[in-house]
Amino acid sequence: MRNLRLLLSYDGADFAGWQVQPGRATVQGSLASAIGRLTGENVLPQSSGRTDAGVHALAQVATFATESPIPPENWLNALNGILPASIRVLEVTEAAPEFHARKSARAKTYRYRIHRAAICPPFLARYVWHYPYPLEESAMVAAAGVVVGKHDFTSFAAVDPERVERMADPENLHTSNVRKIFSSNWAREGEELIYTVRGSGFLHHMVRNLVGTFLQIGKGTVSLEDLRGILDARARSAAGPTAPARGLYLVEVEY
Amino acid sequence: MRNLRLLLSYDGADFAGWQVQPGRATVQGSLASAIGRLTGENVLPQSSGRTDAGVHALAQVATFATESPIPPENWLNALNGILPASIRVLEVTEAAPEFHARKSARAKTYRYRIHRAAICPPFLARYVWHYPYPLEESAMVAAAGVVVGKHDFTSFAAVDPERVERMADPENLHTSNVRKIFSSNWAREGEELIYTVRGSGFLHHMVRNLVGTFLQIGKGTVSLEDLRGILDARARSAAGPTAPARGLYLVEVEY
Repeated sequence: MRNLRLLLSYDGADFAGWQVQPGRATVQGSLASAIGRLTGENVLPQSSGRTDAGVHALAQVATFATESPIPPENWLNALNGILPASIRVLEVTEAAPEFHARKSARAKTYRYRIHRAAICPPFLARYVWHYPYPLEESAMVAAAGVVVGKHDFTSFAAVDPERVERMADPENLHTSNVRKIFSSNWAREGEELIYTVRGSGFLHHMVRNLVGTFLQIGKGTVSLEDLRGILDARARSAAGPTAPARGLYLVEVEY
Repeated sequence: MRNLRLLLSYDGADFAGWQVQPGRATVQGSLASAIGRLTGENVLPQSSGRTDAGVHALAQVATFATESPIPPENWLNALNGILPASIRVLEVTEAAPEFHARKSARAKTYRYRIHRAAICPPFLARYVWHYPYPLEESAMVAAAGVVVGKHDFTSFAAVDPERVERMADPENLHTSNVRKIFSSNWAREGEELIYTVRGSGFLHHMVRNLVGTFLQIGKGTVSLEDLRGILDARARSAAGPTAPARGLYLVEVEY
């Protein structure tokens, strides 16, 4: 049995997220069906983490087990020939049997794009959060650094049954909401205000909840001091709203 | 009665084209319904020309008649507040009563994007034609110039009832298939091969049929001399296939 590793990019706009769901278009479901067409095997690829509906990936990593003798380079062309154009396989490599896309991950990088122009070009509508209202961007730049380091991110974690279920999952590496953030920053690129965050792992909705809270700092309704208090509160109700999925990109998974 | 002029950009991927059709999402229908919601008036905006399903616009021009006293700048925000994010109004101006988006047009510019990389980024799938196979691009560059000038473009016009109907339209300025092309060129921009054409007017499918024929020249199945013969043949069957709609953009309308 081989363990094949895929590097994937997808436009999340038309998918109900990564995870397979009956009757809905998902990235995992599309991959499973493409693999099934090629080999007749019934496998469910496992990724570095589930992305939500509308969230994009520049470089998601997934693995699947197969008995097929097809060489990796042929897998690439064959899968891209079957998959919808909104999912592309960028690389296929042979992985060690013990390699696990989620458990072996050492760091992940996410990016969040906010479009600041008065009118958002229609071609970006699926790919950014359009926020044309005043923001003190320098305050957001300063606030980004506050979350660097090891923190309990409960205030930024979605309160949902899915998370509780994952916490109870004996295979879950993380038994707490403590995560380590290696870098966190906001930068301007033309009309876009872009947040980039690299960390050991992320709780469900964590990046979108951080962005929503940074935005409150930009609006002046939350201060830098408040942000420290929000972290300490360890309560979702302390933090800001969840930013829309369409601005979020999984950029890199490191092993 | 005022004559308001709109400058519009739209992502054509989710629309069944410009022209209103019962039960289908169209650009004209979306605009008519937004205007109706604002003024209660039942108007159908008229554009510089119908774009087909999947064709995009960076700067389409349309007009509509209204008795509403709303100033132009308020129209812009109000329409963008109602329209889907895939249609944006870029400008609203007061036009002279005799201004007509189609009949007053003196020149139009279209662009066609071909993506040449082996793998097309999923975020471009709706916006380019992915053609990763070998092409003699220099031959296409040379061929582009052949169509400059005044020609009968019957070989590049869609043979469809809609065109025949338009030809029979007494309001139609063009009673023949002769059009003047001011400039026509192919250029490389990174992974993209881009065709830009500016002319007095264009027949239905004309740009996509030109692109399909230029591609045959790039493949070496049609020569530069053949292209002259195809123009002279004045028969759709002489030219190449129609390139997909998703790579085509209406870039500018000049008055």
